[in-house]
Amino acid sequence: MSPIAFRTDPSRYRHWKLRFEGPVAHLVMDVDPAGGLFDGYELKLNSYDLGVDIELADAVQRLRFEHPEVRTVVLRSGKDNVFCAGANIRMLGRATHAHKVNFCKFTNETRMSIEDATAHSGQSYIAAVSGACAGGGYEIAMTAAHIMLIDDRRSTVALPETPLLAVLPGTGGLTRLTDKRRVRRDLADVFCSAEEGIRGQRAVDWRLVDEIVPPSRWEAAIAARAEQFSATSDRPTDAKGIALPPLACETSETAIHYPHVRVELDRATRRANITLQGPTSLPTDLAGIHAEGADFWPLALARELDDALLHLRLNEPELGILVFRTEGDPAAVLAADALLDAHQADWLVREIRHYLKRTLKRVDLTSRSLIACIEPGSCFAGTLAELAFAADRAVMFTGSRAGDNRPPASLALSPLNFGAYPMSNGLTRLQTRFLGEPDSVAHARSRIGTALDSDAATSLGLITIAYDDVDWDDEVRMMLEERASFSADALTAMEANLRFAGPETMETRIFGRLTAWQNWVFQRPNAVGEHGALKSYGSGVQPTYNQTRV
Amino acid sequence: MSPIAFRTDPSRYRHWKLRFEGPVAHLVMDVDPAGGLFDGYELKLNSYDLGVDIELADAVQRLRFEHPEVRTVVLRSGKDNVFCAGANIRMLGRATHAHKVNFCKFTNETRMSIEDATAHSGQSYIAAVSGACAGGGYEIAMTAAHIMLIDDRRSTVALPETPLLAVLPGTGGLTRLTDKRRVRRDLADVFCSAEEGIRGQRAVDWRLVDEIVPPSRWEAAIAARAEQFSATSDRPTDAKGIALPPLACETSETAIHYPHVRVELDRATRRANITLQGPTSLPTDLAGIHAEGADFWPLALARELDDALLHLRLNEPELGILVFRTEGDPAAVLAADALLDAHQADWLVREIRHYLKRTLKRVDLTSRSLIACIEPGSCFAGTLAELAFAADRAVMFTGSRAGDNRPPASLALSPLNFGAYPMSNGLTRLQTRFLGEPDSVAHARSRIGTALDSDAATSLGLITIAYDDVDWDDEVRMMLEERASFSADALTAMEANLRFAGPETMETRIFGRLTAWQNWVFQRPNAVGEHGALKSYGSGVQPTYNQTRV
Repeated sequence: MSPIAFRTDPSRYRHWKLRFEGPVAHLVMDVDPAGGLFDGYELKLNSYDLGVDIELADAVQRLRFEHPEVRTVVLRSGKDNVFCAGANIRMLGRATHAHKVNFCKFTNETRMSIEDATAHSGQSYIAAVSGACAGGGYEIAMTAAHIMLIDDRRSTVALPETPLLAVLPGTGGLTRLTDKRRVRRDLADVFCSAEEGIRGQRAVDWRLVDEIVPPSRWEAAIAARAEQFSATSDRPTDAKGIALPPLACETSETAIHYPHVRVELDRATRRANITLQGPTSLPTDLAGIHAEGADFWPLALARELDDALLHLRLNEPELGILVFRTEGDPAAVLAADALLDAHQADWLVREIRHYLKRTLKRVDLTSRSLIACIEPGSCFAGTLAELAFAADRAVMFTGSRAGDNRPPASLALSPLNFGAYPMSNGLTRLQTRFLGEPDSVAHARSRIGTALDSDAATSLGLITIAYDDVDWDDEVRMMLEERASFSADALTAMEANLRFAGPETMETRIFGRLTAWQNWVFQRPNAVGEHGALKSYGSGVQPTYNQTRV
Repeated sequence: MSPIAFRTDPSRYRHWKLRFEGPVAHLVMDVDPAGGLFDGYELKLNSYDLGVDIELADAVQRLRFEHPEVRTVVLRSGKDNVFCAGANIRMLGRATHAHKVNFCKFTNETRMSIEDATAHSGQSYIAAVSGACAGGGYEIAMTAAHIMLIDDRRSTVALPETPLLAVLPGTGGLTRLTDKRRVRRDLADVFCSAEEGIRGQRAVDWRLVDEIVPPSRWEAAIAARAEQFSATSDRPTDAKGIALPPLACETSETAIHYPHVRVELDRATRRANITLQGPTSLPTDLAGIHAEGADFWPLALARELDDALLHLRLNEPELGILVFRTEGDPAAVLAADALLDAHQADWLVREIRHYLKRTLKRVDLTSRSLIACIEPGSCFAGTLAELAFAADRAVMFTGSRAGDNRPPASLALSPLNFGAYPMSNGLTRLQTRFLGEPDSVAHARSRIGTALDSDAATSLGLITIAYDDVDWDDEVRMMLEERASFSADALTAMEANLRFAGPETMETRIFGRLTAWQNWVFQRPNAVGEHGALKSYGSGVQPTYNQTRV
């Protein structure tokens, strides 16, 4: 099977259409039934698979970077009678457990990216729901800042997963229902236990939608709401977007090479060695950043790392350890951070910072062991140091290797380590790291810009352990071999707990509580067994359930 | 197999010893290897099964009620060389999924009850760790307010589940490590990936224990710490405890009858009908409460309901729906609440209130569908109204039944609905219910003491739906039949999400994130398969893992 590719652009979309009207974009879901990513199912009724969501993620991304003029995005359907029927059931019924879990993770991340654009980028989404909007379809609608439902006596919203499919609405649905929409929990229970949807005034009364609109006023009402949301946006009025051209990428059996990210696939040891290159040239001012556009190092790096992570998640499930290394001049990384800091008010720089934030969150949420190796010649500084803080462990080389004239390993902090890149839990990686030592964040902050050697990094609590030339090779090798020997599942579960210390947010609740329960359900015969609901859906045969409660 | 009984008392303990020294109790774990709850495993090295934990839960409870003089409890081992080796692996390897999950839930609740005594009852726990303290053993130690480790070069703490057993430390371990002990997440990763334990100064440096003590000063140091904790307690100095005599209980194939709680086991419809009786007599003052002791209605009710819930969880896994009803005079329940309110400063009343709180949390955490039926003659008032708010749905009868002279159904609130019984998420059930309508809590509060009919209860948002005599029987029957037809697993997972809207606490993180992941791991062949770690542990054969990451 050829690997799943995450790179696309509007000229290649099969399932979405983008239409622009000044500050308003219409993002129209019009799924090609024959356009499934795999054989064996048809994407009827605007149901989706990972391929549909890859296009959606791409559209959300391009709206931010290529369309600074767009202030409101109207999510709507290109079909009569159906908004979206949710994830395709036949696809789910045939997919491996690992594919189901990663499919849900990616779709959840895409939903979050819509909310991120609304919250941080002045680009609000409105869901204009006409026709049946069920399951994952309603979960898409719930990502919008405002849900409009046409009051035509046919259009409904529904989360029928539990009664129909014996699984959860797992793309944030249950959490958004209670935490974002603030639907009363017993009404949520009724809603989620019903096969049929809710329409009209009751949908408003239960907070499932924000308004209902008669068909006669539908288009006018959408336009008015879009105008209203656009009026509150701080996006620029006269800016020019930057293009996101196809990523340059060479792949082989054992490696993926992007301009700034090199991934070696070491299947024997079950590792992916990911090496990020620091910048070799940088613009000197804001105009230069805009002129470079997608070539500006921080943006290029984010796009490449993001693509590499998604490739590894879906196409290389046996590579259980991601080893992060960097190469380059730490001062150059700090200079890039200084540009991102100085020009943070600019719309494009804002987008780049938020994209780096989202990519780093994608690292946190990748269910592989993450190890950062801070070695001579590396540039774990500022933004790149976040990879060391995202890692389950960061090991650092003390001094230099015999006969190696590269500079000794150092770690350096920039202002961006102290707020630009919050994790899903709302805290920075350093705040999460130092939950038990709040003063340590201040200590670290006082050393911004300094090249910290392994002694300094150890005493500041920024690394896990340091080894010198005598021990490094053996210690690192043994650590990685030992890790590779543990159960993949136990590591996934352990890391999902330890990485997200402290507070929970709607986002962590979706990835922690909801997703963990869904992963459990996705293992249970009632859902995935021979006579389970996912397998028997649409066959006319009722599923058979084991009714033991656990 | 005979049902698991949760009722015990110190005269019957096989695994724990209690020793009293004035304000200090020593709670000594000394597990009888031959005392396992089931055949087929020996409880070596102070390892435990559910039976050991039932005794621990009983001891924690009796220390609160029977020993007002006890201010500090020292948790220690009665064995040389081992503090506690954690949950028994052979037991876990043989247990059903449902037993494993409910075993973990109960042990987690018992750990929480230790922390509850420390936080709210002036009874602090100190762990005096001598010998190996591994896995569930260290999870017990972490429930203590203070962990002392003897510095004898042999005694260690460890969480070796991931490397040894391919499961998580699932009794709160990972969450307490990061959130309570505030161990840095990368150090936690190292700690949880090591088979061997950590000892001496490093255990202090990593925050795994609070102090190390040389063997020569061990007993003196324990005494000094106990004295220090006792000095901060607000427990009374001259009070007399109340006895918790064996519960009166008649059981048959189809029913369990306690004096105030009746459980009908309707296996055909997979329901347990639980009817709670309101008080028929109450003391008039504090002295009367003490004189009644365990017969005081709120305490008697809590003990009976608690026992019934545990019985249903472990012994009746196919009864997927708990239908709560009440019978009695709402005014009498409000009078009981008034006593609990007026005398809340008294140590015994405080204990009763906290026990009701914990019992109601046990309701929330019971993975069955919870339906409250508010019917004529019922007394869903104050404390009992919490059952309606804990339920997934509360249905209420409008008016009276034809030919029935009992009073029409009403719902009534007392001050105790507004703070006495927080859920695990730290909010009251009404605050959780009205996350989306904060004013509604105030509206409800303004109606304290009023008998609310179904119209009033509906307009206050306190019930899900009301039916009159014409519709009640059919509607309730159809709802219950429909619910019983859904997948048990999907309902468990859905309810675990919808019941805990809003904020998360360490407690909800343990029951939500950690437990959900552990339940998932408990399904995976790497842990429970023929060649998984739980099955092959101790056999000399290495487990075989599928190393696909999901």
